[in-house]
Amino acid sequence: MAQDPVTGGRRFLVVHAHPLADSLAAALRDAAIDGIVTAGHEADLVDLYADGFDPCLSGRERAVFAKPDYEPPPEIAGYCGRLASADGLVLVFPQWWFGMPAILKGFIDRVFVPGLAFAVDPGTRALEPRLARLRSCHVVTTTNSSWRITELYMRNPVRRQIRNGIVGICGERVTFRMLSMYGLDRATREQCEGFITKVRREFSGL
Amino acid sequence: MAQDPVTGGRRFLVVHAHPLADSLAAALRDAAIDGIVTAGHEADLVDLYADGFDPCLSGRERAVFAKPDYEPPPEIAGYCGRLASADGLVLVFPQWWFGMPAILKGFIDRVFVPGLAFAVDPGTRALEPRLARLRSCHVVTTTNSSWRITELYMRNPVRRQIRNGIVGICGERVTFRMLSMYGLDRATREQCEGFITKVRREFSGL
Repeated sequence: MAQDPVTGGRRFLVVHAHPLADSLAAALRDAAIDGIVTAGHEADLVDLYADGFDPCLSGRERAVFAKPDYEPPPEIAGYCGRLASADGLVLVFPQWWFGMPAILKGFIDRVFVPGLAFAVDPGTRALEPRLARLRSCHVVTTTNSSWRITELYMRNPVRRQIRNGIVGICGERVTFRMLSMYGLDRATREQCEGFITKVRREFSGL
Repeated sequence: MAQDPVTGGRRFLVVHAHPLADSLAAALRDAAIDGIVTAGHEADLVDLYADGFDPCLSGRERAVFAKPDYEPPPEIAGYCGRLASADGLVLVFPQWWFGMPAILKGFIDRVFVPGLAFAVDPGTRALEPRLARLRSCHVVTTTNSSWRITELYMRNPVRRQIRNGIVGICGERVTFRMLSMYGLDRATREQCEGFITKVRREFSGL
């Protein structure tokens, strides 16, 4: 286990993707961090919009991506180090078009790099997990769509993408939890506050 | 029908998302355009990387997104006009992490705006389609994953996202076609060329 040997605390990388400081997503980010700290853990926040993160994988990155000795560019390497040292990953974002905002998709595209997040077996081309520290992934998300539309009509593509396609490939024995608020544009203030409380409680119980 | 009254030709908006000019995706883009022109239609190319497209929905855009009189910023308005005047939409991209590259996701986030692509019923909050001209959507895509992984393990989340979640919301009676090449990193040159030919033939037969 990658816990602090003295306190037992874990390090959570909280990745936040919303451009507005007064958004519900920002409140959910704060609630998650509050819960993490309350539980005696460490929260390392990546606020993508505040960082001015460029989500576009460049031609130079793409050209060498499949190479065994891939090295991310300097502006990405810091994020890679923070991902590698995380015991938990927390993604906080609104769903736009049943997916991540572009800035968060680009964080995956550019920071989950070969050698660090996964490795490719040169013979079989099979992917092998490399995020050895990672023990949990939490998705905290909102959508204007109802549960029925999201689950039955859409089959929640972003959950499958993150759980099976990203965490399932880069990690081993990673606990996956997705906390979703549906029907956001019809929600009352009380419902929003209830969801914020639920998120804080989820993390403070870790 | 929104065809040219004289020639019967349709206008296809081809949106391309790959940073490298010598990529298979670029060859597929060219094959699609070649087929479209051969069939007597018009191809309007949006090359997102060449345009230096910024995929991040801004705070200003987000703050007014739900307003009935939403107006996109000047750098986006031109793309909106081209989308509104398209009879067919063609998305050409490699799948990264079972999804669109961030730059293409951001094209959806920023260009498929209320009023133009969809409308929100003020009473029920239901979404209504607004891309009245749109008759077809083609997805031309590649993935390193096998058919088995993409379809059975992942259930092809990007297909559901685009077909049901984007085109299904913004258009009515839109024909959807997805041409996918699987196992790209194990493919031979002949297999790549065969897929390019298949794509050209698909569009030249329209």
